[in-house]
Amino acid sequence: MTREGARKRRTPSLSRLATRAGAGRAPGTVVASPDASQSTIRIIRYDAERFEEIQIERLDDKALERHPGQVLWVDMTGLGDIDGIEMLGRAFGLHRLALEDVVNVHQRPKTEDFGDYLFIVARMLLRDRHDSEQLALFLGDGFLLTFQQRHGDCFEPVRERLRHNKGRIRAAGADYLAYTLIDKLIDEYYPLLEGYGERLEALEDELIERPHGRQVDMLHAMKRELMGIRRVIWPMREMVNSLVRDESALVGAPARLYLRDCYDHTIQLMDIVETYRETASSLLDVYLSSMSTRMNEIMKVLTIISTIFIPLSFITGLYGMNFDRQASPWNMPELGWVFGYPMALTLMVVLGASLLFWFRHRGWIGRRDR
Amino acid sequence: MTREGARKRRTPSLSRLATRAGAGRAPGTVVASPDASQSTIRIIRYDAERFEEIQIERLDDKALERHPGQVLWVDMTGLGDIDGIEMLGRAFGLHRLALEDVVNVHQRPKTEDFGDYLFIVARMLLRDRHDSEQLALFLGDGFLLTFQQRHGDCFEPVRERLRHNKGRIRAAGADYLAYTLIDKLIDEYYPLLEGYGERLEALEDELIERPHGRQVDMLHAMKRELMGIRRVIWPMREMVNSLVRDESALVGAPARLYLRDCYDHTIQLMDIVETYRETASSLLDVYLSSMSTRMNEIMKVLTIISTIFIPLSFITGLYGMNFDRQASPWNMPELGWVFGYPMALTLMVVLGASLLFWFRHRGWIGRRDR
Amino acid sequence: MTREGARKRRTPSLSRLATRAGAGRAPGTVVASPDASQSTIRIIRYDAERFEEIQIERLDDKALERHPGQVLWVDMTGLGDIDGIEMLGRAFGLHRLALEDVVNVHQRPKTEDFGDYLFIVARMLLRDRHDSEQLALFLGDGFLLTFQQRHGDCFEPVRERLRHNKGRIRAAGADYLAYTLIDKLIDEYYPLLEGYGERLEALEDELIERPHGRQVDMLHAMKRELMGIRRVIWPMREMVNSLVRDESALVGAPARLYLRDCYDHTIQLMDIVETYRETASSLLDVYLSSMSTRMNEIMKVLTIISTIFIPLSFITGLYGMNFDRQASPWNMPELGWVFGYPMALTLMVVLGASLLFWFRHRGWIGRRDR
Amino acid sequence: MTREGARKRRTPSLSRLATRAGAGRAPGTVVASPDASQSTIRIIRYDAERFEEIQIERLDDKALERHPGQVLWVDMTGLGDIDGIEMLGRAFGLHRLALEDVVNVHQRPKTEDFGDYLFIVARMLLRDRHDSEQLALFLGDGFLLTFQQRHGDCFEPVRERLRHNKGRIRAAGADYLAYTLIDKLIDEYYPLLEGYGERLEALEDELIERPHGRQVDMLHAMKRELMGIRRVIWPMREMVNSLVRDESALVGAPARLYLRDCYDHTIQLMDIVETYRETASSLLDVYLSSMSTRMNEIMKVLTIISTIFIPLSFITGLYGMNFDRQASPWNMPELGWVFGYPMALTLMVVLGASLLFWFRHRGWIGRRDR
Amino acid sequence: MTREGARKRRTPSLSRLATRAGAGRAPGTVVASPDASQSTIRIIRYDAERFEEIQIERLDDKALERHPGQVLWVDMTGLGDIDGIEMLGRAFGLHRLALEDVVNVHQRPKTEDFGDYLFIVARMLLRDRHDSEQLALFLGDGFLLTFQQRHGDCFEPVRERLRHNKGRIRAAGADYLAYTLIDKLIDEYYPLLEGYGERLEALEDELIERPHGRQVDMLHAMKRELMGIRRVIWPMREMVNSLVRDESALVGAPARLYLRDCYDHTIQLMDIVETYRETASSLLDVYLSSMSTRMNEIMKVLTIISTIFIPLSFITGLYGMNFDRQASPWNMPELGWVFGYPMALTLMVVLGASLLFWFRHRGWIGRRDR
Repeated sequence: MTREGARKRRTPSLSRLATRAGAGRAPGTVVASPDASQSTIRIIRYDAERFEEIQIERLDDKALERHPGQVLWVDMTGLGDIDGIEMLGRAFGLHRLALEDVVNVHQRPKTEDFGDYLFIVARMLLRDRHDSEQLALFLGDGFLLTFQQRHGDCFEPVRERLRHNKGRIRAAGADYLAYTLIDKLIDEYYPLLEGYGERLEALEDELIERPHGRQVDMLHAMKRELMGIRRVIWPMREMVNSLVRDESALVGAPARLYLRDCYDHTIQLMDIVETYRETASSLLDVYLSSMSTRMNEIMKVLTIISTIFIPLSFITGLYGMNFDRQASPWNMPELGWVFGYPMALTLMVVLGASLLFWFRHRGWIGRRDR
Repeated sequence: MTREGARKRRTPSLSRLATRAGAGRAPGTVVASPDASQSTIRIIRYDAERFEEIQIERLDDKALERHPGQVLWVDMTGLGDIDGIEMLGRAFGLHRLALEDVVNVHQRPKTEDFGDYLFIVARMLLRDRHDSEQLALFLGDGFLLTFQQRHGDCFEPVRERLRHNKGRIRAAGADYLAYTLIDKLIDEYYPLLEGYGERLEALEDELIERPHGRQVDMLHAMKRELMGIRRVIWPMREMVNSLVRDESALVGAPARLYLRDCYDHTIQLMDIVETYRETASSLLDVYLSSMSTRMNEIMKVLTIISTIFIPLSFITGLYGMNFDRQASPWNMPELGWVFGYPMALTLMVVLGASLLFWFRHRGWIGRRDR
Repeated sequence: MTREGARKRRTPSLSRLATRAGAGRAPGTVVASPDASQSTIRIIRYDAERFEEIQIERLDDKALERHPGQVLWVDMTGLGDIDGIEMLGRAFGLHRLALEDVVNVHQRPKTEDFGDYLFIVARMLLRDRHDSEQLALFLGDGFLLTFQQRHGDCFEPVRERLRHNKGRIRAAGADYLAYTLIDKLIDEYYPLLEGYGERLEALEDELIERPHGRQVDMLHAMKRELMGIRRVIWPMREMVNSLVRDESALVGAPARLYLRDCYDHTIQLMDIVETYRETASSLLDVYLSSMSTRMNEIMKVLTIISTIFIPLSFITGLYGMNFDRQASPWNMPELGWVFGYPMALTLMVVLGASLLFWFRHRGWIGRRDR
Repeated sequence: MTREGARKRRTPSLSRLATRAGAGRAPGTVVASPDASQSTIRIIRYDAERFEEIQIERLDDKALERHPGQVLWVDMTGLGDIDGIEMLGRAFGLHRLALEDVVNVHQRPKTEDFGDYLFIVARMLLRDRHDSEQLALFLGDGFLLTFQQRHGDCFEPVRERLRHNKGRIRAAGADYLAYTLIDKLIDEYYPLLEGYGERLEALEDELIERPHGRQVDMLHAMKRELMGIRRVIWPMREMVNSLVRDESALVGAPARLYLRDCYDHTIQLMDIVETYRETASSLLDVYLSSMSTRMNEIMKVLTIISTIFIPLSFITGLYGMNFDRQASPWNMPELGWVFGYPMALTLMVVLGASLLFWFRHRGWIGRRDR
Repeated sequence: MTREGARKRRTPSLSRLATRAGAGRAPGTVVASPDASQSTIRIIRYDAERFEEIQIERLDDKALERHPGQVLWVDMTGLGDIDGIEMLGRAFGLHRLALEDVVNVHQRPKTEDFGDYLFIVARMLLRDRHDSEQLALFLGDGFLLTFQQRHGDCFEPVRERLRHNKGRIRAAGADYLAYTLIDKLIDEYYPLLEGYGERLEALEDELIERPHGRQVDMLHAMKRELMGIRRVIWPMREMVNSLVRDESALVGAPARLYLRDCYDHTIQLMDIVETYRETASSLLDVYLSSMSTRMNEIMKVLTIISTIFIPLSFITGLYGMNFDRQASPWNMPELGWVFGYPMALTLMVVLGASLLFWFRHRGWIGRRDR
């Protein structure tokens, strides 16, 4: 990853955090966000024996008909069709504030009990865009409405299980279906985090072998990204927890047992994110102390070389002076001595050796790893 | 932003925090603060069918008349008219301590239940002055009193909705009106924070391309400002929460539902502020480690150059000495050798090359990004 | 403030923290501390109509007589008169442990409910000594006993209000009097903190214009002092809170309302202290990063100068060597060339210019603020 | 420990944290993990008088027969035998989600109450691999099922006590057996932590005598490992606590008393881990400040040598210039003076001595420990 | 304190933390620890009128006889006599787990309610060994058993008060006696902490006058020791708190009042330890920033000297070159100029002065304290 790449990846998310589409409007106003995509609606109706699946562009009353004992799952993908959302709101008696939250796709995960139905907001991490997508669920008696912000989801295996009546899913109610979707969503976090784990391991190896500044930028970027993921998982955990703990009649005891398992997974995810963040911090500390060690080493080399040669150079300079030996016998008589030059050389060797010995004595040379 | 600008912007707020106008007086004394501006009073009276709006300078009993089934909204802007405030206090039976808090405009946001009415303090961030303004509300049965510290507010859209009977606002009670005002106020925080988000992104780009000290000063200033904003939003969150949770009969179930939505927004704002603060901290760390890398690099260049040339200069100094070759054959015979000079040059080249090789071996040269 | 001044101011408080006068004695032993000052007793007795104030040196039974419907306020200043304290203890049935806390003047602020009376410990910050003084209160049915560690207090305005029957103070009970005193005490914290705010602002300005080490020492000292203040305000907050929340019959509903206001002030004080501490930390970070930037700059100047002149000096050294040109044509023929000197000068200029160009290329010269 | 060793030890755990075997499957699917080892089953049946122990490869109904008043302990080691696990699930009426957690061996320690039985997950630290192994327990009325991930355990002393009827273990019920196993497991943490304590002490000694970079890497690695251990012990603590606090009828009062003791041990373990982590942090700080002191010392030596000899060398250079004394009397007349050379030498000595004196005055030389 | 001393003092405690004597044994096994000292038993029996004190080596039934209305205090010092402990266990019906905790002397302070008696573990700090000693108490109806790990205690004043019937101690019950002992123990912490306070003040003075590395080592060591003390006091606080709050019938209301006072002391101790730790941290920060300032100063001196003399030396080197002026008029004609040498000197003076001026302009020279 280049620096440029790092920058590009991070840039869009910061200021967009504080962008609220409906900020200027009256509360409860349901308006499509400018980048909302075309809606597609998939309606699934099932019980233990029957299964029916239709895909439509426009809703009508017939499509939303409910039969006792059957579960109706209306799954709208893409939130551009405001009329459809309004129609669903009327058909299932949904509160306008909840509908507003459906189209304003920057909600934190939460569970809200509206009496007749639960309004659940969950978020899916997007692997390639380091962003997250909103999934809104309305869980009522015998129905489940889901609103996905973007096309393409991870729920196909669930639909397959429904179609082929695998496991207990068809026999269970809408609460179990809601659990299955939330569980699937949370399962999707694992491979993403695994990717971070692998990158951290690779960085750790690199950092020990060849530390350089880019790794640090990457570690900082990774910490920021993990912080972002933490901010998504933390309220997911609370959302699942309130499904488990709050005594809503809409979630039956068996589904509650399954959701408890799901809650365990969110705790585990938090644990992993924390481990990764602390590992990244620890690696940054390793880098900083290796930088400091290296700096020390560089300064030591400079100091040793300078400290040995600066006095020696002074001596050569001394005997390079041009005092006029003819003018006076006091002027640099050493230059005329028979052993003047060898004595000067000897002086320099002795001085250099003494300094080397002193450095070794202070432990700056010759003991490894300092 | 220049340093001077940074200084000017921050300076006024610190010591003023601890300035309490009424500190020396008996509790419950209502005295105008010296910089209180002229009061204007706007009275709005409405129910689902009727709407009446008057703007006056001085209050009289007639203006405050209450009609069953109607909502009376008295909105005083500018807190210079102590008589008017006292008169409102008597007319609506308000506690003197609450009135004192109305004129001492440095209260933290809070909700206080006085039985017959709720006393609510909220704060509006001022975009251009990095300060906040106080809004005090008294919510009673059929009336809402609001006291704004300064002229100019963000409530015109609410008044428009009242005038033109848009949405459910005219049909709902005083509690819904209070909610609408608080919600509007909180909505105003978003664009302000978005501005911080944009400045952080710009700083991030600059910091990676051209790190310098001023960005650091700006990041520190931004952290301090975000800290200040956090200190406003945090009690706003508690204030809204206590409106939602406390079982006051003055807030009906439908308004409570809307306030819960409002509470979600305060949580989201806290989240955004935290994200920005952590991003600023992370960018400071990036800057510090880039400084440290740069320092290392500078030291390395200095050390390489010094370490190569200091020994070479020593050799030139050596053969620049003036020992008298006539006086003795031991004195610098090298100077008279036929290949003396080429040998000296060769020695220097070999020495320099060895040192370069050693530096490359230690990894100081030639591998990028160290 | 000089370093010496900083040292003197801080020194006394650390070890004295852990000095407990009564540590070796049996619990409940009331012994005057060695530095306790002479006691003065002021007795005030009032109701809405009557007011009586006497100042005595020695207590007698008559002075402590209680009349139904009247409030008796016994205010002892200076805790040297152990007999007087014991006599008060017997007259009002006070527990020995509470009396022990009265004379051991290093108690944390607290509220203790002894059934018939509340025992309250509060602390007053001393402006000029950076220390705090203890105020102990016993609030009972119709009486209030206060024990002040030192002479000189901030309660004169309260006594004036009592004397001249200003406000509701004479009409209210002992609980309101206790509230008034505590509120007065807390009000005294504001100007002290304001002083810190002003010093912080001054330091901020200085630090940006002329950073030096003394400011850092002052910031550290200020952080420690604010920490000390925080340790006083925090339990004050708890003390007031337990007066508000605990359902003692001795504190009536109206006084409770006033105490809630008082509690708001303690929260605000904590807020201010926290803001100041974080500002001090932030300024320290600003200082550190400015130091680091400055260090970088110094190193850069050194490196540029050295790196340019060291190779140039090598060249001058080279042509300063004394190889004997007569002895061999290989010995320094450059010295005899017609354009030898201009060529050497040119070489040096080119070399120096190249290095300058390289530094500019690396961004070390010519772009401001690096 | 070499760097390579450090790397090898840490690498496997990071990305594996986020690997979930069953992530893609329907909830409650029990599938053997790819590295599950061959299962062995040991069945122990006892009461105060009788004891029976069999070891089998395949389960049959007879082996699982329960007799009233007897405790049945089925201990499966190695989780490869899915059929056996399923059969146990049917025989004891275990929930599929719990069985799934048995084979997905990365669960956090927890206690889950399924009504008829408690499902307990505990983790054993592996001494030589710095990893942890899962132990799942089902505690029911008269039976205890344990599932160990790997072969080789620390329960042989418990089995010995059962076989030879030592202590009260045979007289007590399945709850006491479960307690004994958990207690044994927690006891195993002590020697492991003791090993860390010894390594920390050794590092501390080394660091004070010969600080170098490798110790820092080891301290960082140790902190990361302790963090990992903390992440295991923390939920163990919660697990034991919920056994103590939750009022399950399956855990009798006497066993609860023993578990409270066990809970104390987990708190003590947390305490030890925290102490070690803080000690490691403190040692890192000691290292960093010793590095900084050393750097200062190196810089001081360099500065002293340079600052003394650079001016002296300048003087030698000055009188090494070749201005033509014949051409003008202004050209370097000093060279012809009678005492020119001695004066130059004296100048140099005086200059050097003054600088030395100045350094000593500034406290850079001659006072130890700076 | 020398480094060696620092090392010795710290070493023993780290790995011993994780040493558990009874780790391998069955729960409830009471075995003397290898370094347990010889036991001495002192039995005191008293009520308001009578007092009896005997000191024995071996227990017998007669010594433990209980008389209604009397308090029996059995105080065993040194835990080597396992038979005696077992006998006491049987005589007073103590649980084996509690007895095990009595001999395993590394328990955290705690209060455990066993119904008929309370089991209390407290710890005494040892002044000269920086370690702590365990005191175990069993408080029952009319009896108190205490088990002290080592000989020599601080309870003699309590015994004196019992013997001479001073204060209310003889009239009160076993609960008051237990309170007296715990209170005495906690009082012993004050002088120890006062010693730390004095050392911190001394270090603070030294650090401002003559900062060096050893002070830093001492500050780090002190922080670690304070951390250790904090780990003892924190559970002491909880232990006393649970005596105050838990509604055990064994602690009467009057004793509870006294214990509340004791609880205040533990809070105060925590406060002092925290203040000292934060002061130590603050002093470390002061040291680090003074180091950094000093480094900056050193670098500045080096840079100023180098930067002034390196160009000057270049000029001297330039005119020390030996180009042959005879060979060409272009070769160093300056050397033959009449004012060549004075011009060269002037050039050097001007250059040096300019650089000095530039440094002063940048603020590197002449303003103090930079």
